[in-house]
Amino acid sequence: MIKTVEWTDDGVVMIDQRLLPAEELYPLLKTYEEVARAIEDMVVRGAPAIGVSAAMGIALGVKNSSASSVEELDSDFERICQRMSKTRPTAVNLFWSVERMRWAFKSARREGASSDDIKKRLIDEAQAIHREDIESNRRMGRFGAALIPDQATVLTHCNAGALATAGFGTALGVIRAAVEAGKRVEVFADETRPFLQGARLTAWELAKDHIPVTLITDGMAGHFLKSGRVDCVIVGADRIAANGDVANKIGTYMVAVAAHENNIPFYVAAPLTTIDLKLNSGDEIPIESRSAAEVTHFRGNPVAPPDVGAANPAFDVTPHRYVSAIITDRGVAREPYDTSLRALFESKDEG
Amino acid sequence: MIKTVEWTDDGVVMIDQRLLPAEELYPLLKTYEEVARAIEDMVVRGAPAIGVSAAMGIALGVKNSSASSVEELDSDFERICQRMSKTRPTAVNLFWSVERMRWAFKSARREGASSDDIKKRLIDEAQAIHREDIESNRRMGRFGAALIPDQATVLTHCNAGALATAGFGTALGVIRAAVEAGKRVEVFADETRPFLQGARLTAWELAKDHIPVTLITDGMAGHFLKSGRVDCVIVGADRIAANGDVANKIGTYMVAVAAHENNIPFYVAAPLTTIDLKLNSGDEIPIESRSAAEVTHFRGNPVAPPDVGAANPAFDVTPHRYVSAIITDRGVAREPYDTSLRALFESKDEG
Repeated sequence: MIKTVEWTDDGVVMIDQRLLPAEELYPLLKTYEEVARAIEDMVVRGAPAIGVSAAMGIALGVKNSSASSVEELDSDFERICQRMSKTRPTAVNLFWSVERMRWAFKSARREGASSDDIKKRLIDEAQAIHREDIESNRRMGRFGAALIPDQATVLTHCNAGALATAGFGTALGVIRAAVEAGKRVEVFADETRPFLQGARLTAWELAKDHIPVTLITDGMAGHFLKSGRVDCVIVGADRIAANGDVANKIGTYMVAVAAHENNIPFYVAAPLTTIDLKLNSGDEIPIESRSAAEVTHFRGNPVAPPDVGAANPAFDVTPHRYVSAIITDRGVAREPYDTSLRALFESKDEG
Repeated sequence: MIKTVEWTDDGVVMIDQRLLPAEELYPLLKTYEEVARAIEDMVVRGAPAIGVSAAMGIALGVKNSSASSVEELDSDFERICQRMSKTRPTAVNLFWSVERMRWAFKSARREGASSDDIKKRLIDEAQAIHREDIESNRRMGRFGAALIPDQATVLTHCNAGALATAGFGTALGVIRAAVEAGKRVEVFADETRPFLQGARLTAWELAKDHIPVTLITDGMAGHFLKSGRVDCVIVGADRIAANGDVANKIGTYMVAVAAHENNIPFYVAAPLTTIDLKLNSGDEIPIESRSAAEVTHFRGNPVAPPDVGAANPAFDVTPHRYVSAIITDRGVAREPYDTSLRALFESKDEG
């Protein structure tokens, strides 16, 4: 199993996703600032993996704190949480994770825990978030696998696999679960410019698992959707609004529209932690804008003429009308998402 | 003005489009086989530019022939035409150009021309094709410019500029003509994977002409079409069927669908030589499949894991229902294309 991010006694270890597939390196991050920068620089990416990494970064920062009182520790904790919250704006799992760590901190304080106890409880909480993410992916996989026909060709965009989570995957978790259930599945992977998560990460993961994968450029997806070669699309998500609008890696919207136009199911796989019921629609989701150099350069080498500007929105929003179903760790939601997504949260509260 | 391909007494000179924008090199091709390989390897690309290059390659091959009789020259000529026809299957301008050279050869023979006369007439014919292509682009530009609003933001895919033609451009020719008419136009250029014609060629051409250009990855086009930032789309074409279905660079179909979904005009600019009335629909257009290495590697360096396969269809077909208008060198055609395209050919015969 691929280990995306792990807690160790010495710090947080994560696979450097910028170097894959050429190199498989696992840097040890010894400070929360190093973890924050790793999230910003996309050493780690993928909404659930960002959430897990942020929690570990917070636990690490608090562990390293030299605060001499619980009050001082609280103030260090808040500073660390704020730093972590500023790393990337779109994936809501980050904020969910920070809130959960805050809740753990506050309940420890409320119970009069010592600084050492608080530190230990935050480490436990981060590890619980890590463990629960894998369990959540497994449940999602079981729910989603039922939607994948035997001998299916599935198209995916970006990487919503083990590398985007604590270790099994959302969209790729559904594919893995279908394969584990004995179905033959092959995958078309969009290369996903500019960061090439599809070419570098999805292809790498699937090849490791011996799941047949064909790499295509992003512009080819429509051609294969139109030609009847694809049975369904599955992608992950970075934030889902209450009405079912889905923010995901830039390029997802065009895939969804082309799938819709060709009557091919378009599925989104994401845990409830990716759903933001506070937002009524996708219009309210903040879209991160990244450096133009990620578009104009390729591994440091320019591909465009100097002085040519580039836009680099990292995500787009797919309106819910293009989404055939949202596969979560609590079950599968369909239109009307306004009610079906809320119902999943209520079932969780009951559960 | 950018010189894509030129006839000289020493051979055919063309700018090596694979090296742009990093290097601006103009190799001299001394044999028809070198010209054929330059077309196959995409030293030159773009439907009209391929047509012009093929004509020059044929003229060059015939000029170099050591045939000792007109009959022998005829047999050399046929071999050269067949070699040239096998370079790339999709762009119909190639076949149109070969046919036109064949017609010139036959009429020269019919008139009892000597080998030297035939050689001269084929050179003249290739140069006429070159000259007429530029004139055709200029006319197309005038027809198309009327469709571009002042202060428009135009999205384009691939390169349908001076580099795709003998020197002015089809889609970019329309943009240039609008700018020459005093309109302020800015351009979003899709980078156009895998060959990056947008990043390397379109951005380079527009920057040279001081037309503001913003580079985006192919997957971003939908985001900007949906967000109201784009007033219209203009692309070129490699072959257009009688019903208005358009084969163009892979990725065009997704742009057309996203434009349609957002009620943004989607225009195709192409000379009549790109329209193939022999084909009833786009289903009959042969789509070239190129090497997987163009997708899995970037300038010789692998981006995907070894042993991962890739698909590489070089073109896709946009059904005519997504095409708002086809801008030709004889006027603007709209639905129903079955009749409007034929009418343009008839007006040409009269003209």
